[in-house]
Amino acid sequence: MTQKTGDRLTHFDASGQAAMVDVSAKPETARTATARARISMLPATLALIQSGEAKKGDVLGVARLAGIMAAKRTADLIPLCHPLPISAVAVIFDSDAASSAIEIIATVRTTGRTGVEMEALTAASVAALTIYDMCKAVDRGMVVDGLRVTEKSGGASGDYAAP
Amino acid sequence: MTQKTGDRLTHFDASGQAAMVDVSAKPETARTATARARISMLPATLALIQSGEAKKGDVLGVARLAGIMAAKRTADLIPLCHPLPISAVAVIFDSDAASSAIEIIATVRTTGRTGVEMEALTAASVAALTIYDMCKAVDRGMVVDGLRVTEKSGGASGDYAAP
Amino acid sequence: MTQKTGDRLTHFDASGQAAMVDVSAKPETARTATARARISMLPATLALIQSGEAKKGDVLGVARLAGIMAAKRTADLIPLCHPLPISAVAVIFDSDAASSAIEIIATVRTTGRTGVEMEALTAASVAALTIYDMCKAVDRGMVVDGLRVTEKSGGASGDYAAP
Amino acid sequence: MTQKTGDRLTHFDASGQAAMVDVSAKPETARTATARARISMLPATLALIQSGEAKKGDVLGVARLAGIMAAKRTADLIPLCHPLPISAVAVIFDSDAASSAIEIIATVRTTGRTGVEMEALTAASVAALTIYDMCKAVDRGMVVDGLRVTEKSGGASGDYAAP
Amino acid sequence: MTQKTGDRLTHFDASGQAAMVDVSAKPETARTATARARISMLPATLALIQSGEAKKGDVLGVARLAGIMAAKRTADLIPLCHPLPISAVAVIFDSDAASSAIEIIATVRTTGRTGVEMEALTAASVAALTIYDMCKAVDRGMVVDGLRVTEKSGGASGDYAAP
Amino acid sequence: MTQKTGDRLTHFDASGQAAMVDVSAKPETARTATARARISMLPATLALIQSGEAKKGDVLGVARLAGIMAAKRTADLIPLCHPLPISAVAVIFDSDAASSAIEIIATVRTTGRTGVEMEALTAASVAALTIYDMCKAVDRGMVVDGLRVTEKSGGASGDYAAP
Repeated sequence: MTQKTGDRLTHFDASGQAAMVDVSAKPETARTATARARISMLPATLALIQSGEAKKGDVLGVARLAGIMAAKRTADLIPLCHPLPISAVAVIFDSDAASSAIEIIATVRTTGRTGVEMEALTAASVAALTIYDMCKAVDRGMVVDGLRVTEKSGGASGDYAAP
Repeated sequence: MTQKTGDRLTHFDASGQAAMVDVSAKPETARTATARARISMLPATLALIQSGEAKKGDVLGVARLAGIMAAKRTADLIPLCHPLPISAVAVIFDSDAASSAIEIIATVRTTGRTGVEMEALTAASVAALTIYDMCKAVDRGMVVDGLRVTEKSGGASGDYAAP
Repeated sequence: MTQKTGDRLTHFDASGQAAMVDVSAKPETARTATARARISMLPATLALIQSGEAKKGDVLGVARLAGIMAAKRTADLIPLCHPLPISAVAVIFDSDAASSAIEIIATVRTTGRTGVEMEALTAASVAALTIYDMCKAVDRGMVVDGLRVTEKSGGASGDYAAP
Repeated sequence: MTQKTGDRLTHFDASGQAAMVDVSAKPETARTATARARISMLPATLALIQSGEAKKGDVLGVARLAGIMAAKRTADLIPLCHPLPISAVAVIFDSDAASSAIEIIATVRTTGRTGVEMEALTAASVAALTIYDMCKAVDRGMVVDGLRVTEKSGGASGDYAAP
Repeated sequence: MTQKTGDRLTHFDASGQAAMVDVSAKPETARTATARARISMLPATLALIQSGEAKKGDVLGVARLAGIMAAKRTADLIPLCHPLPISAVAVIFDSDAASSAIEIIATVRTTGRTGVEMEALTAASVAALTIYDMCKAVDRGMVVDGLRVTEKSGGASGDYAAP
Repeated sequence: MTQKTGDRLTHFDASGQAAMVDVSAKPETARTATARARISMLPATLALIQSGEAKKGDVLGVARLAGIMAAKRTADLIPLCHPLPISAVAVIFDSDAASSAIEIIATVRTTGRTGVEMEALTAASVAALTIYDMCKAVDRGMVVDGLRVTEKSGGASGDYAAP
C-alpha cells in the first residue's frame, strides 16, 4: 500500500501491482472539481432537443439527472477510486447553435481525503451518453469531445485550472 | 408507452414525458456495436503507461477491466436504457506515439431486443476515465475526444458504420 | 427449491426456509403490471410542484426518472424477486387539486417467466418517495397511501384487476 | 448549486434546474428519523404470516432484512439524495389483527450533514413491498398506506413529530 | 473476442488480454450448479447460533438471504462473468456439532448460455461471510474451508460431480 | 437498536430481531484488517496462471482488481454491515508450487466507527472466486480454504492476530 510520488504512477504499489492508494493519513478538506464535455450533433437534432425542452420532452433534464446520479456511483465504476461522501453535484448545459453542439459542465463538491475529479468526469460523460441515448434514433453520428477536468480546488496538490 | 418515429425522439411518450420505450414486440436478434474514444496525454505519460505495462504496472489492464465491468452496468447508469443479457465484451487499446494518445475500441455483443451501442459507449468512456484516474497524479491535462459509435449491426434499423 | 401452492406461501421451501422459487419450468410470456400510489400534501406544496413544472423546476420529471430507474433495480431490492429483462416502463402523474394529492401510475412490461408486479410497485413507491424528498423542505407531513397493484396480465395465474 | 429557502424547493438551483443541494457548509451532527407504513391484507394472509413466523417460514424476517439493506441503497434510488454513512437501522413490525394489517416502523441513525428521513422511508417501503412479494401468491389485493415520516431529530431544521 | 480451448484460459483473447468470452453462439439450456463451503467455529458459537435460531435471533436466516441476494449480484462482482437471468436459488445449512462447523450448500438454476457455478459459489461464500459478520463479536477465529463447486449439470461441457 | 455484549450476538436487538447495530456513539479511529484465503488447483493450472502473468494473460491482475472493487461493495453484500469510507485496499498473491496453491492476502484500511474485517474477507473471497472463474474451463476442482481474518488493529475491541 505504498504510495508512489514523482514520475511514478500512484495507483501501483512498490512491486508494480494495482492497489487503492492509502489516503488515511490525508486530512479531510473541502474539495471541488469541474469537468466538461461537448457533444456534437446534427443541427436538426439540436433543434429537436431545444424545442423538446420547451414542450415535447426534456432530453437535458433526463441527462442532468443521469449525470448527478452517476457521480454517486463513481467508486463503483472506476476500480481504484475511493468512495467519497459527495456534498453537492450540479450539471449545467450550454447549447451552441453555431457549432451544433451542447457543452456539459459538471461540478462536484465534497469534504474528504481525496479529490472529486473522477466524480465530475463521470457526471459529465454519463450526461453526454444519456443525450446520445435519447437522440440516437434520429442521429447516430453524435460525437463527444473535450471530456476533461477544467478546474479543481482543495487538497495537498493545490488548485488547478485547465489552460 | 407509445414509441415515436420519424423526427420525434423515441424516449418520450405521446404527451412528451420520458419513458422506457416498449421493445416487447421486437424480436430477439444478434446485435453487435463498437464504440471508440481517444485519450490524449503528455508524451511522458504515454511512455510511463507503456513501460508500466511491461514491468511496473498495468494501467491498460485495469482500464480494460473497468470498461468490461461498466458495460454490464449500463442500464443502471443510462436512465432509459433497457437491461440486456450481454454475451461478449472486448476492450482493445491502440497507442499512438505520434499524437501522444491512446485509442480505445470497445465491442459488445448480445442477443436481445435492443442494440448495444450504449453498452459499447459506456465501456469506452469508463476505460478512458480509468486511464485518467490512474495517471492524473502525473498529468492532469489529459483529454478524451472522439467518443462515438463506429459500427453497429443487427436490429430493425439496419447496420451502421460511421463515416 | 420446491414451490408451494394453495394456502402455503410460495417463497418458502418444504422445510419453511426462504428460497427464490424455481421458475425455470415456466414459459416466457408477455406480462404487464400496473401499480398506483397517491401522495397527499399541503395545497401550497401541490401548487409549488405545478408551477415548478412550468418554470421553476420539474419535481415530477425527476420523480418519473427515479421510478423508471428503480424498476430496473427491483431484483436488487426485493430479496426473493427474480431478475427480469424489462421491456418497457412508464410512470404517469395525475394531480388532484380537490384532495391536494398526486396520483402515481406505473406500468411495466416484460417477456419473462414471472410477473412484473414488484417492478411496478417499486417504480410507484420510489417515484412517490422522490416527490417527498424534493418537497420535504416545505412540507414534512406528506403521506403516501394506496400503494397497490391495480392491473396485471399474462402468466399462468391469469389476469387481475383490483376491485 | 445555490440552495433555495422559504417557499422555494431546495433541490433546484437559481435557474430552476435540478441539482444535489450543497450541504458542505453544514456541520456533521447526530440525526435520527423514523418512518412508518401499514400494509393491509386478508385476515387469512395475516394468520399465515403469523403462523409462518412460528414454524413455516419467516416473512417478516425477510422483510426486515430487505428494509435494512434498502436503507443503505437510498442514495442510489432517490436521485438528489446525499450518500450518508448510516450508523444504525432497525425495522420493527406490529401486527394488528383487528384491522388485518401489519404496521412497519423503520428507524435510521447517522452522524452526517443531512437527515435520514429518506433512508427511513426507503426502509419502510421496501419492507412493505417485500411482504407483498412474499404473500402475493395468496393475496393480490394487499395495500400499503400511511407511508410517512413520524419523527425526526437533529439538524438545523429542528426536531419534528408527525401530528 | 476469440474463445480459447484446450490448455489455454478462456477469458483471454488471442493476444492474451482479458475479455468477456463470446457466448452468443451457444444455445440457451437449463443449467444447475451446486457449491458448498464449511465455516468452523468455537462450540459455544455454534450453540449460540443454534439457540439463536430457536429464540434469540436467526443468524442462518440472515445468512440465507444474503447468499440468495448475492447470487443475483454475481456478474457485478466477478469481472468476466456473464449476466444471467437466474430462475432459482436455494441456500441450505447443515450444522455439524462433532466438528463444530456449519456446512453451506447453495444451488442455483438458470436457462441461459453459460453455467451458474459462479453464482452458486458467490451465494455460498457470502452466506459464510454473513455468518462470520454476525458472530465475529464472540468468535474472531472462524474459518471458511472447502468452498468449491460440487455439482453442475447442463451445457456443452457436460455434467460434473466433484470427486 | 440496543447492542448486545458478552455472549450475546451483537446483530440482534433485545427481542432477538436482526438490526444494524448502532455505532453512532463510537469514535472514528484508524482501523486495519487483513484476511487471507488459499485456492488449491492442479499443478498444470498453477503453471498456466504463472506463465499467463508473464505473457499470455493476467489472471491474478484481474483477480486483484475484482477483490479491490468488491471491498467497496461489502455493505451491499453483507446485510448488517455498516457502509464505510475505505481509505486503502491492497490484494497480494503468493504462489506456492509445493502445495499447488495460491495464497491471497487482502488488507483494508479505514478511518471509521467500525472495523474492516468484512471488507478484507470480501476482497479475499472475491479474488479467489475470480481465479476460479478464469480457470474453471481447465480445472473445475479448485477449492478455496482458509478464508479467515488474520490481523486486525484499531477500535475498542483491541488488536487481534490469528493464532
